Amino acid sequence: MELLEKRIRNDGTVKDGGILKVDAFLNHQLDIALFEEMGREFARRFAGEGVNKILTIETSGIAIAALTSKYFDYCPVVFGKKTVSLNLDDEIYFSDVYSYTKQQSYKIMVSKKYLCPEDRILIIDDFLANGKAVESLEAIIKQAGATLVGVGIAIEKGFQGGGDALREQGVHLESLAIVDSMTAENGISFRSQGENLHE
Amino acid sequence: MELLEKRIRNDGTVKDGGILKVDAFLNHQLDIALFEEMGREFARRFAGEGVNKILTIETSGIAIAALTSKYFDYCPVVFGKKTVSLNLDDEIYFSDVYSYTKQQSYKIMVSKKYLCPEDRILIIDDFLANGKAVESLEAIIKQAGATLVGVGIAIEKGFQGGGDALREQGVHLESLAIVDSMTAENGISFRSQGENLHE
Repeated sequence: MELLEKRIRNDGTVKDGGILKVDAFLNHQLDIALFEEMGREFARRFAGEGVNKILTIETSGIAIAALTSKYFDYCPVVFGKKTVSLNLDDEIYFSDVYSYTKQQSYKIMVSKKYLCPEDRILIIDDFLANGKAVESLEAIIKQAGATLVGVGIAIEKGFQGGGDALREQGVHLESLAIVDSMTAENGISFRSQGENLHE
Repeated sequence: MELLEKRIRNDGTVKDGGILKVDAFLNHQLDIALFEEMGREFARRFAGEGVNKILTIETSGIAIAALTSKYFDYCPVVFGKKTVSLNLDDEIYFSDVYSYTKQQSYKIMVSKKYLCPEDRILIIDDFLANGKAVESLEAIIKQAGATLVGVGIAIEKGFQGGGDALREQGVHLESLAIVDSMTAENGISFRSQGENLHE
């Protein structure tokens, strides 16, 4: 998605340790007009798949998922929670996930009430790197007996392999921008969109 | 806001310890069409205030803030972060907050880059109870030298006093539903909207 790639080039920063900082528009300050365009693009790429629920994970996936729902007939958005809260049900699905940027493991939890075997689920998230967050949501979808229709990602770090592993497993993965390499010196290079669309 | 009060009556549950569970539509499974209507209503209540930025706090405020932005010319949404991440800047504002539902204290952090003295800020959050989260965002706005235009809340727990304290301080607070009392036996009673609008 050219709009997103351009924005990453203009406002993203490559930092040491494989970190792409996009907090100016994607995960701290949020550009909602951009998120609407991303939602529209996800709808185009997953058209006809019968998506009736969007599943994401707190925190940075939530706003993107929220703006995407509109293009899937305002289907419900459910987000996996990372911390136990008095608001959470006793009956929950849970799964483990390791966060690269936070360098720690945690559990994600989804109340059993909000996933059912009839659900056709689109996972939405801001980043895909090693794929641990998506795997963990997949595990929860499996526990619920629901169907994973596809995975829509804003920025895939192509060089970390999580996306390619999902594709090999036959998951319908659509990443709006795939970073194939990035360094502070040489900038960012994206995998061509055509390549992505025709594979 | 009648639509929201009706939804709370239908799908909310009162639990022991002053907990109102609305995770069916507000803070775990999200009803995006409802959030759009809430955003439209915030825009009506804060019309002409020159809002150019929305500030919220992770996690449950984010989707409401995101759907509200559209009605303020797609102004940026910034959310206060609760955990240190490799993505966060070194230059941050921070403030302490105590969460009633999670029963622990934590810091919220906002990168200095995303708040400036010219900003006219609307705080948006899902719940207002004792007002600790709002106070903490106010402290950050003060540090940035920005202007707090108002506070828009989905559900205020009127009986916990945080909202009335903010009103006494002269803060322009608009809560779409104000719960004045609630028990598992007798259900929920709301403060009348007219009373709220004319005070």
